[in-house]
Amino acid sequence: MSAAPAKVNIAAALAGINDHWNPRIAAEVGDTQIKLVKFAGSFDWHSHADEDELFLVISGTMRMHLRTGDVDVGPGEFIAIPHGTEHCPEALDGECAVMLIEPAKTINTGDTITDRTRTKLQRI
Amino acid sequence: MSAAPAKVNIAAALAGINDHWNPRIAAEVGDTQIKLVKFAGSFDWHSHADEDELFLVISGTMRMHLRTGDVDVGPGEFIAIPHGTEHCPEALDGECAVMLIEPAKTINTGDTITDRTRTKLQRI
Repeated sequence: MSAAPAKVNIAAALAGINDHWNPRIAAEVGDTQIKLVKFAGSFDWHSHADEDELFLVISGTMRMHLRTGDVDVGPGEFIAIPHGTEHCPEALDGECAVMLIEPAKTINTGDTITDRTRTKLQRI
Repeated sequence: MSAAPAKVNIAAALAGINDHWNPRIAAEVGDTQIKLVKFAGSFDWHSHADEDELFLVISGTMRMHLRTGDVDVGPGEFIAIPHGTEHCPEALDGECAVMLIEPAKTINTGDTITDRTRTKLQRI
């Protein structure tokens, strides 16, 4: 028998994350994972050939650079990036905390392997 | 060519919802949908044979009744309900607003058809 469902407090879970660009798995809904991550500075331009990706900002401000123009996303706001769409997230004014909703197989740097690529994510 | 990605402000989207137990589609990530819904009072006990379902509380407090015990979930907290798990959400103290993350095919009342079953959801 599996464990009884338990709630997750997002702020408490984020308090345990002390690095950047290193998503943790917070929950799963079928093949979709809900991840928590902190951003600082700018990431790398990339896209995901097959996976859509949703960024929900929990704290701070994320600037999502897109070829169609930048979109600033604040707490309580989200942006969904369709598969195949080049994007580059940046944390404005220090750090921002983000909930990601994406297929489990999504690699954070997409089709580009860098020193910030993370393929084995920890669970919260 | 598809439209440029745009952000969604959750509070603004919720301000346009004036009924209860009637989820709206706010975004899609592959076959997974992100829905927004307001709860008031108690729903009906049900389960989803195949679909996991995640409830992220935006405002108010949701009491998730489970056969293993109740779990109260407040703003900034979520609970994931595995497929096959009986559950019954209730809004405490009036109304609560919730973001649902679940497969697109998920029916709000699960395996039980009631007068609150919604099969054709509006988009925000």
